[in-house]
Amino acid sequence: MRSLKKELQIQKTYEMLFALEDLREIFRQSLPTGFSDKEQEDFSNTANRIKSILSELETGEGKPACNRVGCLDARTREEEFINIHPIQAAGRLTPEGRKAVISYGDGYSTCDYCRKPFRLDKITRPPIEEFHQDLAKFLNMEQARVVPGARRGFQVVTQSLVERGESVIVSALAHYTEFLAVEVAGGVVKEVPPDQENIITAEATALKIDEVKAKTGKLPKLIMIDHYDYQFANEHDVHGISKVAREYGIPFLYNGAYTVGVMPVDGKKIGADFIVGSGHKSMASVAPSGVLATTDEWAKKIFRTTQMVGDLTKRKFGVKEVENLGCTLMGATLLSMIASFPRVRARTASWEEEVKKSNYFLEQLLKIQGSNVLSEWPRRHTLTKVDTTGSFDTVAKTHKRRGFFFSDELKERGIIGEFAGATRTWKLNTYGLTWEQIKYTADALLDIAKKYGLSIN
Amino acid sequence: MRSLKKELQIQKTYEMLFALEDLREIFRQSLPTGFSDKEQEDFSNTANRIKSILSELETGEGKPACNRVGCLDARTREEEFINIHPIQAAGRLTPEGRKAVISYGDGYSTCDYCRKPFRLDKITRPPIEEFHQDLAKFLNMEQARVVPGARRGFQVVTQSLVERGESVIVSALAHYTEFLAVEVAGGVVKEVPPDQENIITAEATALKIDEVKAKTGKLPKLIMIDHYDYQFANEHDVHGISKVAREYGIPFLYNGAYTVGVMPVDGKKIGADFIVGSGHKSMASVAPSGVLATTDEWAKKIFRTTQMVGDLTKRKFGVKEVENLGCTLMGATLLSMIASFPRVRARTASWEEEVKKSNYFLEQLLKIQGSNVLSEWPRRHTLTKVDTTGSFDTVAKTHKRRGFFFSDELKERGIIGEFAGATRTWKLNTYGLTWEQIKYTADALLDIAKKYGLSIN
Repeated sequence: MRSLKKELQIQKTYEMLFALEDLREIFRQSLPTGFSDKEQEDFSNTANRIKSILSELETGEGKPACNRVGCLDARTREEEFINIHPIQAAGRLTPEGRKAVISYGDGYSTCDYCRKPFRLDKITRPPIEEFHQDLAKFLNMEQARVVPGARRGFQVVTQSLVERGESVIVSALAHYTEFLAVEVAGGVVKEVPPDQENIITAEATALKIDEVKAKTGKLPKLIMIDHYDYQFANEHDVHGISKVAREYGIPFLYNGAYTVGVMPVDGKKIGADFIVGSGHKSMASVAPSGVLATTDEWAKKIFRTTQMVGDLTKRKFGVKEVENLGCTLMGATLLSMIASFPRVRARTASWEEEVKKSNYFLEQLLKIQGSNVLSEWPRRHTLTKVDTTGSFDTVAKTHKRRGFFFSDELKERGIIGEFAGATRTWKLNTYGLTWEQIKYTADALLDIAKKYGLSIN
Repeated sequence: MRSLKKELQIQKTYEMLFALEDLREIFRQSLPTGFSDKEQEDFSNTANRIKSILSELETGEGKPACNRVGCLDARTREEEFINIHPIQAAGRLTPEGRKAVISYGDGYSTCDYCRKPFRLDKITRPPIEEFHQDLAKFLNMEQARVVPGARRGFQVVTQSLVERGESVIVSALAHYTEFLAVEVAGGVVKEVPPDQENIITAEATALKIDEVKAKTGKLPKLIMIDHYDYQFANEHDVHGISKVAREYGIPFLYNGAYTVGVMPVDGKKIGADFIVGSGHKSMASVAPSGVLATTDEWAKKIFRTTQMVGDLTKRKFGVKEVENLGCTLMGATLLSMIASFPRVRARTASWEEEVKKSNYFLEQLLKIQGSNVLSEWPRRHTLTKVDTTGSFDTVAKTHKRRGFFFSDELKERGIIGEFAGATRTWKLNTYGLTWEQIKYTADALLDIAKKYGLSIN
């Protein structure tokens, strides 16, 4: 059962963080020469408040804290619970990311030393230019830009390549943002069917291209495939598909929303023309953030600079990139990416271990009779779609809380992130949990099953 | 001169914030049931560290702290200095904004309670839906959406309204992002000339429309004018221009990047079809963020929902908005906007006082002979372009540090944000400074002038 002491200590941690922000505000309102009497008094009072919070934090005893920020509750889920939410796992900030956000929260905080040519990815202090080079290297591509979310990366490419009515090949398991990125460019999606195991193959992609060619008389302008899809997180044959793309002479966009930042991604090896990743989904960054990487050749097209000239003033805005609308992430979004990056880069080497934990966890779940894994098995990813229609849902059928009984039981054990109320098919993600947390969570599932008399193998 | 004690105390504040993040990470790695022995030890050590930082913070004595986060310096400019940076002033986070960012930094932190229809602006916990209604009301418009920066708001409108080769009326003082938003939609900018006082008038706008009509045979598709421009922050006749727009039947986009969040903006009164504001420029929010508001009538067009249907699966993605690519600001960007909003809304009532401070400050600058204000005078805004060619630049001409002498002198007095090295024409913004800070900064300028023997009236 959850520790009440820990809960109070978490509250006190937030209370102290917030009190420090109050203290920080006193500095902001004061003169460089030092405090006025009133400010000194505020400072002393706040410091005393912090002191007493600290003693409660240490002992875990004291009054519960009210950490509301206006109409907002302080979000303490990541501290109080084990979070198995399908899309939140790899977007949790690293401690470095959180520190960067504290330091660089203010609006245009990246722009202190912006100099000619006045473009975000050219700023050297903080080392944003270097980070862009690191990003490109990390993905083994030639150029990279940060973008406000993976979807904005797709959009840069579709709007640069696709004309009205033209076709774009996507997967039948494609994320909705790919649909929208094609639609906003005026294009039309053409879906590659999955095979019986819900895998998108190179062969099926080639057949789909032929079909589009036959029906429309034109080749598709772009192939955009998720390495792992959002529905099952099954692995699709991006290497084979990239080969097919080359054979047909169609550019290939690798959607790495579920890979870039958690596992090694080698753009050259894949043979991708474009790689898109998500900062808030898989790179431990503040939303909206992401990365779009490409080759020098394609960069000329998708990162083309403005050609617009003021008809009257003859103004031109030099190196500003049209599809990025100039600068993209001018604040804490980018700085959280940069601060988290060393750890993010390092953690991709532990991907196999993450997959092992995922498989271990699901093996425990499968012990509960009537439970199934709908994703490919064994797992090659930490995101998984499971089916508990034959197990937990049989309880929900007669429980007065219906499917919420399951959420209640999980929550009582300090676990959240399942889709509340769902006991048939639902998704979970074990990414980043320690082995202890994995085992604890698996035991909790078995414990709940036992409590309700479900059979366990 | 700057207080060394204050500087150390600021370092200690950051050091403690960072130590608290280390503490927070221990909670994140632990089980809901409580700490392991190792975790308890880490916790105690960190708590002890915090205790000793606190005592140094209180006394202002102790070792300087190294608050680097990997390759990043902690950004302490806002605490250590008075910042007169032209675009940073109104984007500084409120204390509430900073607390929200601490709570909601993690990637998809807005999505804990996302339920059908699965769209950001429909989420009720945290109260995102309510915030969207508040935003629309705040601007006296019917609908509002948050967007990743004002530029993305322009883009939504241009891409919805403008076809290839069509004209968009902008100001000859238009921001580059307006150029890009027109270019990315395939349109062409047509600039309205300013009058002799660098003001865009209704009459000049009407003449430009006539000229475009005569030259191209078609009316422009959109008029997009900055209420206050980025170059001089002069006030342009948006009310008159909106009337002209109605007379010609052309939709009018009010660019409020320098107004929404600092002064009252009434969309109905202006007669705007679209209002765009910037979160990180004027609404005390994390970048990239902004707002796009419109009427119910125009919302149907610019916020149109997806019509794309998967050719194979027949999938459709319901209420997702094409131009917004679904959800826009799914994390700390939005939460900082929400948390800062009550204070942002309230502060617009103090705009006249802010303008008074701006004018007072510049009156002091003008006492230094050879100094000029290039923006309209008296000021109606806190952002101003000044010309010190006849004053500080005369010193720079012979100083071994050239124009940097001025930055050095300012910095020594705890003032930053001027364009380092610039002593001819440069911009500054006094927004949000207290009267004490304003007077201190004005005195500093006079003091520097005296030091170098410049004449003072």
